[in-house]
Amino acid sequence: METFRHMAGHCLPEEVAVALTCNGTTQAVMMASPQDVKDFAYGFALTEGFISQVSDIERLDIATHETGLEAQLWLTPEKSQALDARRRHMAGPVGCGLCGIDSLSEAMRPLPVLPLSRGLLTAKDVGTASVQLRAQQPLHDATRAVHAVGFLLPSKGVVLVREDIGRHNALDKVIGALARAGIDTRSGAFIITSRISVDMVQKTAMAGCPVLIAVSAPTALAVDVADKAGVTLAAFARGQGFDVFSHPLRIETGDIDVAR
Amino acid sequence: METFRHMAGHCLPEEVAVALTCNGTTQAVMMASPQDVKDFAYGFALTEGFISQVSDIERLDIATHETGLEAQLWLTPEKSQALDARRRHMAGPVGCGLCGIDSLSEAMRPLPVLPLSRGLLTAKDVGTASVQLRAQQPLHDATRAVHAVGFLLPSKGVVLVREDIGRHNALDKVIGALARAGIDTRSGAFIITSRISVDMVQKTAMAGCPVLIAVSAPTALAVDVADKAGVTLAAFARGQGFDVFSHPLRIETGDIDVAR
Repeated sequence: METFRHMAGHCLPEEVAVALTCNGTTQAVMMASPQDVKDFAYGFALTEGFISQVSDIERLDIATHETGLEAQLWLTPEKSQALDARRRHMAGPVGCGLCGIDSLSEAMRPLPVLPLSRGLLTAKDVGTASVQLRAQQPLHDATRAVHAVGFLLPSKGVVLVREDIGRHNALDKVIGALARAGIDTRSGAFIITSRISVDMVQKTAMAGCPVLIAVSAPTALAVDVADKAGVTLAAFARGQGFDVFSHPLRIETGDIDVAR
Repeated sequence: METFRHMAGHCLPEEVAVALTCNGTTQAVMMASPQDVKDFAYGFALTEGFISQVSDIERLDIATHETGLEAQLWLTPEKSQALDARRRHMAGPVGCGLCGIDSLSEAMRPLPVLPLSRGLLTAKDVGTASVQLRAQQPLHDATRAVHAVGFLLPSKGVVLVREDIGRHNALDKVIGALARAGIDTRSGAFIITSRISVDMVQKTAMAGCPVLIAVSAPTALAVDVADKAGVTLAAFARGQGFDVFSHPLRIETGDIDVAR
């Protein structure tokens, strides 16, 4: 499937419904860009907690239907049992008998608390990340209408990028791609083209990545959640400085003037 | 609840989990801006098809929990029966036994086809809408980080605006506010600050509004879906012309040079 289409003089990004099933049952349907669907499936399964490592998935098939794509995940017997138990405990947030207050607790679920560390990145790493990310967005170059997420390694720069019409999907794709490549998320930072909402912090914490950098603003609740989960949030990172909203010690300053 | 908070020298938008329940059972949980939650609940119930008119809701309460807000909708006996029947038919897209292909069909559900008409709006109406919308975004003025959706009436301009961190929520809020005020959505157009993805077209068609105008780009699939549903899509409307991607006859041109 192509990633964009020419219509009325413009180059428009494609969009497709992607159903993620575990052992034959739908876990979620998302509207997404059609590339890197395997990365997406792995990443979503990791950030939603269906699996804790790549080897929990025995098999992944991508089926193409008239109405969209289906990523069919088949879990190991052990993880299948855990998923069944979870399904009995939580009927699912949509129309399945769960009351409002239980659904809210599920949405604001407790996150792993990441161990704090000092000086993982330099201010230069963070300050230049958005420029490096921008240089690796071919679909955005063509369409000017999609988000990107990159993974930044100290002194190596942005080493992996995924694009999607949805910023959450782009983050899941990066997390899945890193897991499949065996790259440790604890060693670097995510850099995103968009704003930081709570779900971006939740996915970052679930992936075990200690730093989330954004070109745009965080929400106030995203800062609260990042603070509790031990995630460093840096925002307004547009190539000329940035601001840090939580756990600033992971970023060594000194060479750039950083507002705190 | 405040709509923004000062943190680290910035004015950040608030974000809150909102559970929408019908007759005590959760239909959806969304992360949203905390204002205009009643409009949101009415609009979401309309665009998701739980209700077809305002009077289908007997009562709406907003409960504040530690984890978020709960919009508690209580439907008329007739609509409650219809919802129960729907629930038996469709277990819900998340982890409730629905297979992938059925979930995809649900996500790409058939939409009402709007009757075509000529010359509902002038090119001037459409061309100036984004400037009028921009003048009515107080939360965005404060935070520079939230979306807005407005309702545009021919020769009257943008008469109603709602803001939210999520563009889908902002559209639902406008649709709910219009329904509660008794304003006919068939008489005007939605103008949005964001891109047009499929779900924005779906909500527009479900609300019966014939025209969707965006400051930014549509996806290719959004154009396909708008074409089938009889919705006029105008995009790249940034105050200096615009492009029309479907059903152009609703917009009278002549006074502005419009690329087709």
